[in-house]
Amino acid sequence: MTVATRLEEAIAELAGFNDDPAAGGITREVYTPTYRAALDRVAAWMGAAGLTTRLDAVGNLFGRWEGSDPDAPLVLTGSHVDTTLNAGRYDGVLGVLGAIEAVHALRERGVVPRRTIEIVAWAGEEPRFGTGCVGSRAAAGHLARADLDGLRDRDGVSMADALRGAGLDPDRLAAAALDPASVHALVELHIEQGIVLERAGEAIGVVTAIAAPHDLRLALRGAATHAGATPMDLRHDALAGAAEAMLELERLARTSPSGTTVGTVGVLRVRPGAINVVPGEVELDVDVRDSDLEARAAVVAGLLDAAAAIAARRGLELTVTPIVEDVPVACDPGVVEAAEAAVRGLGLPYRRMTSGAYHDAMVMGSRVPIGMIFVPSAGGVSHHPDEYTAPAELADGVRVLAGTLERLAA
Amino acid sequence: MTVATRLEEAIAELAGFNDDPAAGGITREVYTPTYRAALDRVAAWMGAAGLTTRLDAVGNLFGRWEGSDPDAPLVLTGSHVDTTLNAGRYDGVLGVLGAIEAVHALRERGVVPRRTIEIVAWAGEEPRFGTGCVGSRAAAGHLARADLDGLRDRDGVSMADALRGAGLDPDRLAAAALDPASVHALVELHIEQGIVLERAGEAIGVVTAIAAPHDLRLALRGAATHAGATPMDLRHDALAGAAEAMLELERLARTSPSGTTVGTVGVLRVRPGAINVVPGEVELDVDVRDSDLEARAAVVAGLLDAAAAIAARRGLELTVTPIVEDVPVACDPGVVEAAEAAVRGLGLPYRRMTSGAYHDAMVMGSRVPIGMIFVPSAGGVSHHPDEYTAPAELADGVRVLAGTLERLAA
Repeated sequence: MTVATRLEEAIAELAGFNDDPAAGGITREVYTPTYRAALDRVAAWMGAAGLTTRLDAVGNLFGRWEGSDPDAPLVLTGSHVDTTLNAGRYDGVLGVLGAIEAVHALRERGVVPRRTIEIVAWAGEEPRFGTGCVGSRAAAGHLARADLDGLRDRDGVSMADALRGAGLDPDRLAAAALDPASVHALVELHIEQGIVLERAGEAIGVVTAIAAPHDLRLALRGAATHAGATPMDLRHDALAGAAEAMLELERLARTSPSGTTVGTVGVLRVRPGAINVVPGEVELDVDVRDSDLEARAAVVAGLLDAAAAIAARRGLELTVTPIVEDVPVACDPGVVEAAEAAVRGLGLPYRRMTSGAYHDAMVMGSRVPIGMIFVPSAGGVSHHPDEYTAPAELADGVRVLAGTLERLAA
Repeated sequence: MTVATRLEEAIAELAGFNDDPAAGGITREVYTPTYRAALDRVAAWMGAAGLTTRLDAVGNLFGRWEGSDPDAPLVLTGSHVDTTLNAGRYDGVLGVLGAIEAVHALRERGVVPRRTIEIVAWAGEEPRFGTGCVGSRAAAGHLARADLDGLRDRDGVSMADALRGAGLDPDRLAAAALDPASVHALVELHIEQGIVLERAGEAIGVVTAIAAPHDLRLALRGAATHAGATPMDLRHDALAGAAEAMLELERLARTSPSGTTVGTVGVLRVRPGAINVVPGEVELDVDVRDSDLEARAAVVAGLLDAAAAIAARRGLELTVTPIVEDVPVACDPGVVEAAEAAVRGLGLPYRRMTSGAYHDAMVMGSRVPIGMIFVPSAGGVSHHPDEYTAPAELADGVRVLAGTLERLAA
């Protein structure tokens, strides 16, 4: 059986662990029974690849292939197998199941790694508890015990209670922190979730930096007056003000000198939300990302200045609430070099690129040398049932990952 | 007891007929048991004012004060006592209870009207069944029997079933149509629901025309791609396109040559609505109003042209769905003159103005000569628990209505 076929079959099987199949996509949130069952299946696949598995205090699953020099810092690879609601089957899953296939491929070629290679399925990359990457954040030592009580899902369940429900012990959080000195490098294989590779007809993206989001909520408050009875010059229309702010955000991101800034309003709430009432209150959830922290900060500052000016001019009240402000991470030159060597060795068309999406690798990048390998996403679609990468493209990714691991573990 | 005190007490008592007092406002939708109880209370007040009451086939309540010339076409006045969800206590109610007070005032002054005066509480001015003014539409002969099955509320209950539930017979719909020749004039007292009178410090608005809405839904479809992974130049952001369209609507309404056009987007839906996903689909519910039909049509046409150009430039798909397109109505010069004479006789500051909101009078204006009298709305707030007009202002409205009725019925 080819790598492409075996991987495609495993991905299809894992897609069967699904809490909402009727919706058409996959719903497998971290710490649910369905997630735990999927993780058990992954552990079994790890075992079949000759890996020794262990689960840490927050549910990160590791599969270990001990190297000939077990004391040397190890090479870590992996991603996540939880999903958002009604999502696709490749996001995260490729990085875990693809890594298992890469180990199979290395074994079949008789490779004996000097360094230990560990595959990891990080818990909770998707933001069930508002914040994403809870598993890798715990491994990076970025979570405190109190956070596990404070982080809550949409039903109000705390992460601590979710851990207990999954048979884990939140009080053992500290044991999940990895010793950075024990890790030589981390490399994560992932679908691009964008259309850059597809548009360019390239098989592989070697990631040089991971952009990080600065997310904030803007609330504009005006006056919810009658749409018919309020002349245009007596309005304080929060939605019209929001429209101006959104276009200003788009302009700022488009003209950002880094060339890599993106700015998005993905969530907009209008109150009261009646056709015959001028909107009195609008909330915008804004996401600004860049691998260039300075350029990102300039766009955020420009947006806040513009929003304040718009609010003043329109007689609106502006409130800004922080959501998240992560730090972009540059990939390690050694990991990038290993990945480029692997992809060149295979003769595949590729590009060096920035990851606009954030990943567990970004979180771990604060502690250990990291890199990422992208394969194309059809139409750039992700977090959606239509998410798709062709089996041959997945197999290219696995081959590049295998070559990268071989080089990093040598 | 003064008119102001008695009216304020009646308004407060009627506010007690409320299906959702916990929400803070008033919820009294047409044809509910609560509505029916409120209507019975209104009928009792009508009786106490010496009026003979009758309920027509769609639940319009009439109270008749027979004139000295009972064969002369009569003078009709009134409004409605149903509400939207969690609404205020004055919208509609003033026009019914204020008319009863006006009859008391005329009687106390010994007026004997030549023409019969009828007070009406129209059924269903608020759009429980999607379309508003169902009572006056039936009286104007604008509803067909089939409409009563087709019009449904948010729970799927048809207007026909709601009528039956209220003890009325939908098959008697035709009997609710008024003979236009039997009506000399209709005048409706109402709160302004805007801030024009309040800003100007005026007690009364004499309405010269009622603007009518042209409502439509614009749907923009782009591509729901990853907010981090999709560069700005590869996006098809439906919300950014919507923002452009909204600002263009605002610009068109502001610069409309009539000076009275208003354009509003009161409802906006974003899909999928996640902070890390570029909006793939946005629906905008647009409301454009004017008493000047040509100016309104020009704004709607300008918006549709602009939306099509925006969609083409951004690679979005535009769909336009009609919602409603009512015809503005000019008030009858004779009714306007009677109202102006009444207000001048009282020495109150007033203005001639357009009604931006639609009313039962607009519907009846297609059949009989109509006019309206406005009193100020605090802050222009309406359809909201904070809706307020001071007792003295309400009493001014009653006095002007009484004077208008006296003149029209002479």
